[in-house]
Amino acid sequence: MPHQIAIGPNLRKSAYFEATLRAGGKSFSVYNHMLIPSHFGDPEAEYDRLLNGVVMWDVAAQRQVELAGPDTGRLAQYLTPRDLSKACIGQGRYVPLCDHDGWLINDPVLLKLSEDRYWLSVADSDIHLWAAAIGRERGWNVQIREPDASPLAIQGPRAGDVAESLFGSWVRDLTYFGFAETRLDDIPLVLARSGWSKQGGYELYLTDSSKGDALWDRVAQAGEPFGIGPGAPNDSERLESGLISYGADMRWQTHKATPFEMGLGAMVNLGAGHDFVGRAALQRLADALPARVRIGVFLDGQPPLPGHSVDMLKDGATIGHVSEFAYSPRLRRMIGVGLVQASLAQDGLAVHIALGQDKVGAQLTPLPFSMP
Amino acid sequence: MPHQIAIGPNLRKSAYFEATLRAGGKSFSVYNHMLIPSHFGDPEAEYDRLLNGVVMWDVAAQRQVELAGPDTGRLAQYLTPRDLSKACIGQGRYVPLCDHDGWLINDPVLLKLSEDRYWLSVADSDIHLWAAAIGRERGWNVQIREPDASPLAIQGPRAGDVAESLFGSWVRDLTYFGFAETRLDDIPLVLARSGWSKQGGYELYLTDSSKGDALWDRVAQAGEPFGIGPGAPNDSERLESGLISYGADMRWQTHKATPFEMGLGAMVNLGAGHDFVGRAALQRLADALPARVRIGVFLDGQPPLPGHSVDMLKDGATIGHVSEFAYSPRLRRMIGVGLVQASLAQDGLAVHIALGQDKVGAQLTPLPFSMP
Repeated sequence: MPHQIAIGPNLRKSAYFEATLRAGGKSFSVYNHMLIPSHFGDPEAEYDRLLNGVVMWDVAAQRQVELAGPDTGRLAQYLTPRDLSKACIGQGRYVPLCDHDGWLINDPVLLKLSEDRYWLSVADSDIHLWAAAIGRERGWNVQIREPDASPLAIQGPRAGDVAESLFGSWVRDLTYFGFAETRLDDIPLVLARSGWSKQGGYELYLTDSSKGDALWDRVAQAGEPFGIGPGAPNDSERLESGLISYGADMRWQTHKATPFEMGLGAMVNLGAGHDFVGRAALQRLADALPARVRIGVFLDGQPPLPGHSVDMLKDGATIGHVSEFAYSPRLRRMIGVGLVQASLAQDGLAVHIALGQDKVGAQLTPLPFSMP
Repeated sequence: MPHQIAIGPNLRKSAYFEATLRAGGKSFSVYNHMLIPSHFGDPEAEYDRLLNGVVMWDVAAQRQVELAGPDTGRLAQYLTPRDLSKACIGQGRYVPLCDHDGWLINDPVLLKLSEDRYWLSVADSDIHLWAAAIGRERGWNVQIREPDASPLAIQGPRAGDVAESLFGSWVRDLTYFGFAETRLDDIPLVLARSGWSKQGGYELYLTDSSKGDALWDRVAQAGEPFGIGPGAPNDSERLESGLISYGADMRWQTHKATPFEMGLGAMVNLGAGHDFVGRAALQRLADALPARVRIGVFLDGQPPLPGHSVDMLKDGATIGHVSEFAYSPRLRRMIGVGLVQASLAQDGLAVHIALGQDKVGAQLTPLPFSMP
């Protein structure tokens, strides 16, 4: 039975909240203390738009943490194991963040807007508190705030057509994660070639939340010839594509993971002269192979889904966990992603998944899933 | 129209989640990345139990941040402006937390379990990240983790009867915020005389989440002679009582406030030799009167409620905001709480509230509300 969500003042409303209600938003989740649509009542159409056309998503809950001031670059570099020495204005970069023990606490995209103003486009944890504490404890001159910035994603193979009709043909020249500050008449925004799918597209970081309705309607109009419709970050597609979801796949409080376990080891720069939070711990971890690795699973049949992380078993012993399952329309079967003991990460290995009282058969497979 | 909540792996389930579904949980919110029931379909009965009987609440989403190790006391004192020099094992203490600029970022209850193990029972922000960053940047020997601790609250005038029948008559001797580690047969927990209402009661911090169902059922059975039933932290009662809700009344990202503005100035200890996060900023703020103060409002009529913070107006100018409204059954009218310019905090002052396109009349009144 579906349960209601309590819409009260403790949960923030997106700049597009009213627009998503008008568009038929049926179900919401919460991300960075903000309501985020999870579907509009027709999951198959929403998946189809993403794969074959274009879909628009209210992802304003992907909040920005702004670093501003003379020590911005210094703090940003200290916050992430990834080397930022070649970071450019106008070019985003995926930057895992770890705590002092090397556990992942978020995995934002960094947007360098100018030499002394950066945004971290964060997953679901309060990075503003962490970043500000570190900057101030180190005595660096950098201010942390949450700017008025509300991403609206357009994703899918026709997203470029929609973006071009809105902004002009220059949008085709943006590299992946490239971005530019621009306007739609009186609507200010940052346009980025990005989004949480592998189907391509753009994110429009609206920088005046009073214009959420106006931007939503402009995008819907421009997208009409291309069959645009509303949707939300899509579990099936993100599992198929092997995208990481901080909060679902790992979370500091409940199921910690390191960048090496999550396949992000290449982003940990242990070169000389590069100091960052968690360096000593990550150095120790880098000296050994990770104990666990990311893996995909094919699940037998179509059992009811748990809605939370479950154990993966081999011969009755726990060998890992699956963090999320979904039906893959392209593969026509249930798939999942998780972490497994590295020594058992074998393509085709038969395992069991603990679903309530039942054990359901499953087979391991590398990520991302191979599509037909 | 009510909207559904998306129950997925990015939102944690409480130790009592299955029990609350069995008990008829209809609506949920999200707090500290965890689902929390908001009502069970009969708000009037839930209020009545709280005021006149006893009600049980799943408040496991009030998570604990554990500080452990030799420098625990030192870090705890540095995290809060409140003087902890007289903090005792077994006696909780309300401890506002501020950032380095003096803005509130949480307002937990501190539980000193031993000399080197404290819990912060936190409101809705990721204090674990902030506390760990500060401890580690200062080089102190203290580990931060989230323990397996899930509060279940019993609140109302008959809560003492329920607690006594479960644990024995010693529970009557606990002072307000007093607590003790104890057991119910094989169920380990920390029993505290506390809870987010002014009706009195206890919180049972279950420390083995696999026993959530068992504890819920034990409490429901013990409470049956006293008419216990399920409920949730109650907006009407908390507004009547003037209780603060971090996230609703103030939030770092959206509507910042200082401890002086929130009526917590007496907890800011600026005595010599006491260093803490935000001290310099709070010293400056303490030298002046706060620009804004907390206030209650009576709202004319029963207009539809906005579900978010709205402006308070006088002669067309914004003079403050109201963070939440609810109907008060005891006062038989709509009430709210907010912040107003200190010079205008006058009992009975007529103001307007901006509700969508409308301006609705309202009158200011001191907090807590006077009950008939």
